[in-house]
Amino acid sequence: MIKQKGILFVLSGPSGVGKGTVRKALFEKDTALQYSISMTTRPIRPGEQEGVDYFYRSKDTFEAMIGDNQLLEHAEYVGNYYGTPRDYVEKTLDEGKDVFLEIEVQGALQVKANFPEGVFIFLSPPSLEELKNRIINRGTETEALVMNRLKAAKDEIELMDAYDYVVVNDKVDHAVEKVQAIVKSEHCKRERVASAYKKLLEVSQS
Amino acid sequence: MIKQKGILFVLSGPSGVGKGTVRKALFEKDTALQYSISMTTRPIRPGEQEGVDYFYRSKDTFEAMIGDNQLLEHAEYVGNYYGTPRDYVEKTLDEGKDVFLEIEVQGALQVKANFPEGVFIFLSPPSLEELKNRIINRGTETEALVMNRLKAAKDEIELMDAYDYVVVNDKVDHAVEKVQAIVKSEHCKRERVASAYKKLLEVSQS
Repeated sequence: MIKQKGILFVLSGPSGVGKGTVRKALFEKDTALQYSISMTTRPIRPGEQEGVDYFYRSKDTFEAMIGDNQLLEHAEYVGNYYGTPRDYVEKTLDEGKDVFLEIEVQGALQVKANFPEGVFIFLSPPSLEELKNRIINRGTETEALVMNRLKAAKDEIELMDAYDYVVVNDKVDHAVEKVQAIVKSEHCKRERVASAYKKLLEVSQS
Repeated sequence: MIKQKGILFVLSGPSGVGKGTVRKALFEKDTALQYSISMTTRPIRPGEQEGVDYFYRSKDTFEAMIGDNQLLEHAEYVGNYYGTPRDYVEKTLDEGKDVFLEIEVQGALQVKANFPEGVFIFLSPPSLEELKNRIINRGTETEALVMNRLKAAKDEIELMDAYDYVVVNDKVDHAVEKVQAIVKSEHCKRERVASAYKKLLEVSQS
């Protein structure tokens, strides 16, 4: 039986932009996405479940996995490791399910290096949109303030360049709709559809 | 004043696939898209308006425009020319409006050659989806029938290769939702957003 493979979607952006809020609102509306389960070295807490909240591993195991490039990204936080296991992501994608990962910019860049076939979405603060209007209507602001804004905007544009999509988080609902549109349209990409059919035709002739 | 440029969307696919039905249903839901107005040499009819139903031009003018590469595509039908004027499309895009063109496969390939920055959507018959199941469950069909299906599927996959997206027209509503998702997500493409901001920053510093 042949299924279309799932797609790894990575939602990232500057801290404070509202990634968690958008992700939660998205998962309330969209039940077909599988949220990526992280691996950690921190001890399991009461009420948590292995493979549901986290995959719990020893520090030795985790470090061995880092050495074997078995994590799409990892970071240390308050003395514990956290990371995204490649094996879990690939197995889920092979089952035809999309995996959704919400992560800081540094983590996203690690995923991009290790799994470039993912789809990378940059959640942008609304100020970038506002900036447009402010610069256009300037004269009401000091030049120093405008220069600061320009500098901040330039830094963000440079961050964006590693991503496939930019979603402005002006309103959570709008941002969620855009992420849903990206998920839907990525499944219609000709490369994916045509290669699935090509594979199908090969199989059927063997 | 700086606006994001519009995008040219081209919906095409084999004849009989339901392009017109999908386009009509899309325009009932989506009023932000501008349907591409064609140019023709056929005489204007009572009730029609220049620049609304068609742009009406003489055969000489039309042929001069063909010679000047001023048409994104053109064809002859029952002794009259029909075509898509480049100038009209570019002006509409510059105003920040998306242009939507529904057209036969041959016309779409001409547009692709003349305007590769368009977004090309292949509307695929549901039989391609069905084919998957039929081939998987075969044994209930003669081998000749299966081979015919394979041949037809291969021809369609080759046609697809010029397109950016493939939308299966299994149900009109589903197809419309997918086209709308493509329109929305294309506006979030990083290349477009980042280049708009880069342009903005250049302008604001001059």
